[in-house]
Amino acid sequence: MMRVYRIQDGASSRYVIEREGTWRALEGDLFGAFTEGAEIPSEGQKVLAPVLPSKIVCVGLNYRDHAIEQGKPLPPEPLLFIKPSTSVIGPGDAIAVPTWAGSIHHEAELAIVIGKRASNVPLAKANDYILGLTCVNDVTARDLQNKDGQYTRSKGFDTFAPVGPCIAVGLEGRDLQVRCYVNGNLRQDSRTRELIFTIPELVTYISQMQTLLPGDIISTGTPSGVGPIVPGDTVTIHVEGIGALTNTVVARQ
Amino acid sequence: MMRVYRIQDGASSRYVIEREGTWRALEGDLFGAFTEGAEIPSEGQKVLAPVLPSKIVCVGLNYRDHAIEQGKPLPPEPLLFIKPSTSVIGPGDAIAVPTWAGSIHHEAELAIVIGKRASNVPLAKANDYILGLTCVNDVTARDLQNKDGQYTRSKGFDTFAPVGPCIAVGLEGRDLQVRCYVNGNLRQDSRTRELIFTIPELVTYISQMQTLLPGDIISTGTPSGVGPIVPGDTVTIHVEGIGALTNTVVARQ
Repeated sequence: MMRVYRIQDGASSRYVIEREGTWRALEGDLFGAFTEGAEIPSEGQKVLAPVLPSKIVCVGLNYRDHAIEQGKPLPPEPLLFIKPSTSVIGPGDAIAVPTWAGSIHHEAELAIVIGKRASNVPLAKANDYILGLTCVNDVTARDLQNKDGQYTRSKGFDTFAPVGPCIAVGLEGRDLQVRCYVNGNLRQDSRTRELIFTIPELVTYISQMQTLLPGDIISTGTPSGVGPIVPGDTVTIHVEGIGALTNTVVARQ
Repeated sequence: MMRVYRIQDGASSRYVIEREGTWRALEGDLFGAFTEGAEIPSEGQKVLAPVLPSKIVCVGLNYRDHAIEQGKPLPPEPLLFIKPSTSVIGPGDAIAVPTWAGSIHHEAELAIVIGKRASNVPLAKANDYILGLTCVNDVTARDLQNKDGQYTRSKGFDTFAPVGPCIAVGLEGRDLQVRCYVNGNLRQDSRTRELIFTIPELVTYISQMQTLLPGDIISTGTPSGVGPIVPGDTVTIHVEGIGALTNTVVARQ
């Protein structure tokens, strides 16, 4: 298992590979052939969102425990919505919440990073199209979501898709702990074994409709415990085997 | 008024400027500074989608005549949804409809092409961020739309966003005729003066939430008369001053 980070490199960025705490340069193409190069210090680096996806395809109500808790029937098919590329931020960046929009919620999610162009992928081949796993905070303007019907406005604000801190490559996603902390207090805590639609099932299902491009993200849904975040808060999404995605919350100008 | 076409150029593409039927090479950057170069024959060229947007932000129920006809109240705010970049095709390309998905409908729309990065744009400045106008066919799997609630699946299939044939630069969009023909039969016929939310209002509204990037598209909604298309059909969207966007319909493999 290795973790791939994208870090600031002057005005540009570069990828590094982490194994057991040691960082090495990634030489070549993350989405093609690559090797490990010279060691790089991990201290003092600015870690960026690990990919710049063309889209984030998100799944609603995909945790069994959450559906049961809410007294909702399990969905017969995945409920999909899209967060645009312009909503992506990286670890340490600020979530800018519109103060006019009412309650803003965190949603801790395990996310899939697509490794190669995927269209009509059979279930047995789905894993071949996955580069690795990361964390997403599916930040949601809850009052607008309830009012609008469509989720596009409430989930599509700039900065409403923190992604990172890395891509865990070779990590088995079937039973990982997914947590959210706000100011150090545990708010969400579940495991991906509660997912109604599994990682390979989501890749297959979505790729039957929409081509997934290298670097695109599927965010697999959030467990119970969603709740408000306000300016001044610090919110951390932690997925076992991947790491912590921490962001501050500020008021949008 | 000029029209900008994107045409195939070997394995790449290039822009041309049309004035009164004469094509000239566009030299420079369509989204920056450009001039008109040598004349280019318009015959035998493959016309492509005029832009490759990072996203298409679409507006639902935005025609007054359509809302009144359907007995629906006028929406207090624009209803937004997103079509992903992977749904875009150009003039002459085939709309590939999934035969398992039930009824597939055409939706003729006037669309806005964004010219420069737009965030929190005031209404009085909105026109400064618009490069020009084009046509979009907001192809929709109507049965899936009614079933899903969210529009992401029903409107996001590959090929479900024909765009083109050109960008009309300097065209006033306030009162243009918008039509759809299927196999030569008129199916939709309205005018953009029936828009509930106008072109500048949409740029301002959307840019308050999501940054719009150069080449992004806002599709302004469809008037009454939507209806089914099936494999073998030819569907044309025509917007006054822009031209005709024609696509065939085939069964998706």
